Amino acid sequence: MIKEKSLLMLPGPTPIPPQVAAAMTRPMINHRGEAFFTLFDEVSANLKYVFRTEQPVYVFPGAGSGGWEAALVNTLNFGDKVLSVTIGDFGDRWFKVAGALGFAVERMEFAAGLAADPAKIAERLAADTDKQIKAVLIQHNETSTGVTNDVQAIARVVREHGALIMVDSVSGMAALPLETDAWDLDVVLTGAQKALMCPPGLSLISFSERARALSQTNKMPRFFWDLKAVHSAYTKRQTPYTPAISLFYALQAALQMLREETLENTWARHRLMGEMCRAGVKAMGLELLAKDEARASNAVTAVMAPLEPKVLRKTARDRLGVQLAGGQGALESSIFRIGHLGYVTPNDVLQALAATETTLALHGKLDNVGAAVGAAQQVWVARLRG
Amino acid sequence: MIKEKSLLMLPGPTPIPPQVAAAMTRPMINHRGEAFFTLFDEVSANLKYVFRTEQPVYVFPGAGSGGWEAALVNTLNFGDKVLSVTIGDFGDRWFKVAGALGFAVERMEFAAGLAADPAKIAERLAADTDKQIKAVLIQHNETSTGVTNDVQAIARVVREHGALIMVDSVSGMAALPLETDAWDLDVVLTGAQKALMCPPGLSLISFSERARALSQTNKMPRFFWDLKAVHSAYTKRQTPYTPAISLFYALQAALQMLREETLENTWARHRLMGEMCRAGVKAMGLELLAKDEARASNAVTAVMAPLEPKVLRKTARDRLGVQLAGGQGALESSIFRIGHLGYVTPNDVLQALAATETTLALHGKLDNVGAAVGAAQQVWVARLRG
Repeated sequence: MIKEKSLLMLPGPTPIPPQVAAAMTRPMINHRGEAFFTLFDEVSANLKYVFRTEQPVYVFPGAGSGGWEAALVNTLNFGDKVLSVTIGDFGDRWFKVAGALGFAVERMEFAAGLAADPAKIAERLAADTDKQIKAVLIQHNETSTGVTNDVQAIARVVREHGALIMVDSVSGMAALPLETDAWDLDVVLTGAQKALMCPPGLSLISFSERARALSQTNKMPRFFWDLKAVHSAYTKRQTPYTPAISLFYALQAALQMLREETLENTWARHRLMGEMCRAGVKAMGLELLAKDEARASNAVTAVMAPLEPKVLRKTARDRLGVQLAGGQGALESSIFRIGHLGYVTPNDVLQALAATETTLALHGKLDNVGAAVGAAQQVWVARLRG
Repeated sequence: MIKEKSLLMLPGPTPIPPQVAAAMTRPMINHRGEAFFTLFDEVSANLKYVFRTEQPVYVFPGAGSGGWEAALVNTLNFGDKVLSVTIGDFGDRWFKVAGALGFAVERMEFAAGLAADPAKIAERLAADTDKQIKAVLIQHNETSTGVTNDVQAIARVVREHGALIMVDSVSGMAALPLETDAWDLDVVLTGAQKALMCPPGLSLISFSERARALSQTNKMPRFFWDLKAVHSAYTKRQTPYTPAISLFYALQAALQMLREETLENTWARHRLMGEMCRAGVKAMGLELLAKDEARASNAVTAVMAPLEPKVLRKTARDRLGVQLAGGQGALESSIFRIGHLGYVTPNDVLQALAATETTLALHGKLDNVGAAVGAAQQVWVARLRG
């Protein structure tokens, strides 16, 4: 038999659609000329559509997590107090970045599997009567635990206090509902390699008018992530230094696909895949890491592993062609994760569930197979029937 | 007639070889798995070959000029004195970046068309008896003026003083000889979109052991460009955040081509193209911006424009299919530039010269055509005859 095809079910990088791959083969252009202006205009308009904002969405060559630095250095000054809300590994990392950059960071942690409690955040902010806290950092979707925060509710309590609300939506953007303008979010950042269906290498970030105004007078030393420079270049349909042209073409093609699907349908597809995945996982007797299923992520499902996750993933990959993700940090030996975001469809979820179930059977953890896919199919059928 | 083919003769972005374009269409992989390790190992080895160093060459998602920030924030502290030697627009930019990041920058300027004088630098450093100058910044090749600095001689005088020598080789690397280890250079930085024949989106940078040791104790706040983090990840064949996988594949393919050509032959090809270009330019009666032809760049030729550069470039592009570059900053209305680096061959130089000469004829600046290409052919013939 030929080798089984490979299916990438990671929470990023995610599979690249053929149109996106092909777009990267286009010949190089002058990034200071008309061909780039046209590309820039289309990408800019479609990013506003995806971010749900009227503000510019800046595209930096970089990694999604570079946006953590951009968010902070443009709006805050050395020693400013920041409340870092963390529900997992990526929250922890942003917390560390803020400390390394010279801010006074206070950590508010919720146990793995829980979402942040807006009431707890409100309580902490209410106690900050002299308004020392200048910004609140939060993940939209915590990739490491498969839990989605209630950004709308959190943004509301932060806005009441007056601090800036900064949202890492690296694995949330385009997969899960987010309303940058309607929820009045000050900074929203993401990467290209998740639900935006592109290869990694781009950092995308929006700022509210309030946040951008702060960048005008802000004294933090900065160059690469400087909002003033990128905003000034944007008014001339330019970037402050050479843009990643091939990745821009990839983004153009991916955003065209998203517009065609419509963002509402993209969200609905991810919701369906999340529901299918959770139904399948439970049908094979496994437990979700997410304590409250209402806050379980529709972009990635974290599952308590019934055998060593490395062994499980190796079997699924080498014998069944499906690449699952492991746990991060403290969860490395207790969970595995099924990514279902980006260029992924319900059939991919069925295949991932089948591979997981077959792996359990091969390792003697299950007697019968079929229940997982059946349960997921039922969810799909119900959706198709409307 | 069908539209004339388009030939990109810019000093970056440069044309992408078909192998490099094809490499970017490869499916996404897990960047924490075996497939990435293999890619990482090959790219790392070949980058050492191109940089002429035994030290690691770090690959960041970013722009070449991001390396300016990486060089400074890892090795110097706030207020440290830096001598910024500038012979053109990119020197000016690095000077400004160093100031914006909080260093005490002293500027040493040479007029457009001149290379930096190593004796002047030696003189300045000799006067710095209490060793306040911690680093000297220099361009290997100044893209905006088409002049190449004598990095070897400059490095020698800087090493005698004891400051760090930091070299921006964005448009020099792989086009022009540079010996990172043999010349004992502390920081060498470049981008992927020049002689490395890749699309823009990668920042490549090497540090001497001396410079890397400084990064261990250095107190500058930093995250994205942090050498400690990237070096620690490299020891595990990893990157501190998601690498730009498709651009890594592009770099892999381009480096394979460079190894096949051999770096010495790549340098010789650029030398030939530089000589051909200058011979052609002079044969049509035009003047080089470079005052000393021995220091004229073999990567890009800057030419005094006999008519408004924008008009010249528009005719060459729209009627003859050849994209030339304009001047930057103060030189915008006085020069045009012919890029001849990266995936460019002697035949491309002939075509660029023909387009330039025909443009002059169309604008009434020349009566006869043919001399430029003829002169360049003579250079080529002489080389072919050996």
